[in-house]
Amino acid sequence: MSQFPTDTPGKGGSPKSKGDFARFGIVTVSDRASRGEYEDEGGPALLEFFHEAIESEWEAVYRVVPDEMDAIEAALIELVDEHDCSVIVTTGGTGPATRDITPEATESVCERILPGFGEQMRAISLKFVPTAILSRQLAGTRGKSLIINLPGRPKSIRETIDEIFKAVPYCVDLLDGPYIECKAQVVDAFRPKNARR
Amino acid sequence: MSQFPTDTPGKGGSPKSKGDFARFGIVTVSDRASRGEYEDEGGPALLEFFHEAIESEWEAVYRVVPDEMDAIEAALIELVDEHDCSVIVTTGGTGPATRDITPEATESVCERILPGFGEQMRAISLKFVPTAILSRQLAGTRGKSLIINLPGRPKSIRETIDEIFKAVPYCVDLLDGPYIECKAQVVDAFRPKNARR
Amino acid sequence: MSQFPTDTPGKGGSPKSKGDFARFGIVTVSDRASRGEYEDEGGPALLEFFHEAIESEWEAVYRVVPDEMDAIEAALIELVDEHDCSVIVTTGGTGPATRDITPEATESVCERILPGFGEQMRAISLKFVPTAILSRQLAGTRGKSLIINLPGRPKSIRETIDEIFKAVPYCVDLLDGPYIECKAQVVDAFRPKNARR
Repeated sequence: MSQFPTDTPGKGGSPKSKGDFARFGIVTVSDRASRGEYEDEGGPALLEFFHEAIESEWEAVYRVVPDEMDAIEAALIELVDEHDCSVIVTTGGTGPATRDITPEATESVCERILPGFGEQMRAISLKFVPTAILSRQLAGTRGKSLIINLPGRPKSIRETIDEIFKAVPYCVDLLDGPYIECKAQVVDAFRPKNARR
Repeated sequence: MSQFPTDTPGKGGSPKSKGDFARFGIVTVSDRASRGEYEDEGGPALLEFFHEAIESEWEAVYRVVPDEMDAIEAALIELVDEHDCSVIVTTGGTGPATRDITPEATESVCERILPGFGEQMRAISLKFVPTAILSRQLAGTRGKSLIINLPGRPKSIRETIDEIFKAVPYCVDLLDGPYIECKAQVVDAFRPKNARR
Repeated sequence: MSQFPTDTPGKGGSPKSKGDFARFGIVTVSDRASRGEYEDEGGPALLEFFHEAIESEWEAVYRVVPDEMDAIEAALIELVDEHDCSVIVTTGGTGPATRDITPEATESVCERILPGFGEQMRAISLKFVPTAILSRQLAGTRGKSLIINLPGRPKSIRETIDEIFKAVPYCVDLLDGPYIECKAQVVDAFRPKNARR
């Protein structure tokens, strides 16, 4: 497991925002990246997304783990139970190959599955590439945390997260988490009127 | 648990229809409505749908229950096993909040899940609001009954039920239930040619 | 269980293709067809699809079984474990009627479910008929084999398989199976650049 290098700070947002401070978890699942044979691209793409999209104050915690059930579960549990991350995004390991085990590890640590995320992410990616049908990505909740599996490639990550993140701040509200504000020009997050500050 | 007030009769349809008599169940799942702190809007919206959409003779049985696993299960089982409801629609309790437990209770009493209903209802609602991705609504069968989770808000109920109900009469046929006829201008129900009267 | 008559050879493809030899399984699930009361239409439609769509060399193994859990499971296991079929397609038995048991049998023999297949097949069929919502068809993997439930009617089979098969050759690659080539004018199969021969 590794952290972001110190010259890539995992922090952002404005203290002038009406929102609360929130912590995000980023988990790159990759045998090669975890052995240092390959530079992780998914994790930095997710960090860049948070920098561009989140208006309220935030901090990211980043982990790189191999495609192993135990390692993925341990990283997710740590980010939820010890770091109180409100949203955890994973990248990699959602295909049909034998080593791909991210959805199983995610389902195993979640109390509830939110099937709409997997459905909508696949529907979005199918507009770009027919092999999106093969993705087993899912999302679920553990305690007050929402865990979402994202694709491995930076391009596919942004095609999906820019769209589905519109519902994430309200989901975190419903889980009794912090009030997250987005920059509307990047993510036009939706909350019912009575849930807006 | 409460019944419709006597001035809101849960009956309708025409004896001249070629269809059979059918009983529908309506289950409002809401802590506040079940304590009388809030006037249920979902149940009446569903009753109004049946009045507008069903041509053949029908009767509705209505229950209001709190967001409790046992209470929801008991209402669904009663409506299937004692009242022979061919179709049971629930409203409320399908979100990601801790108290939302309607999908779990529904899955627990069903023998089979029909995943297409949840998928299509979320796809429809996503056209109106991005937070539809958070809904965990599902549908399944118990004996000869089809149980469908609908959203809580009357507007969202009609956006989805008007569309998905097109497949419900034929589903009830396949479950050896009564032949239900719809008013085509409200719900253009579809049956394969060899299944039509 | 029966085989194709000898005048309908279950073989095709060109030895000049860059692809590898592959074996396909076709399983018709139908009480009536298995008793000989009804001529199977789904199996021949699937065989015709392979003839039209597959460029690399292939051979098909065909089974007709009744709507019985044990019989379907046994046929799928035989086609995977004994015949090394890379792709197995079933037709029939995916509706909500009591006898329909194909999805349960498929799930039971698979190690993993690929939820995108059921979702996309229902979404495609919904463009043609609202009762597609009732289909419980799914896909999954057992060892190196991909098993896909298709509809029963030849027209519905082609509406879906022509579209979803675009992702099948790459899925088989990821499962360490043979390199399957399609005729691009029938199925424009997609592989990422680094996976192409």
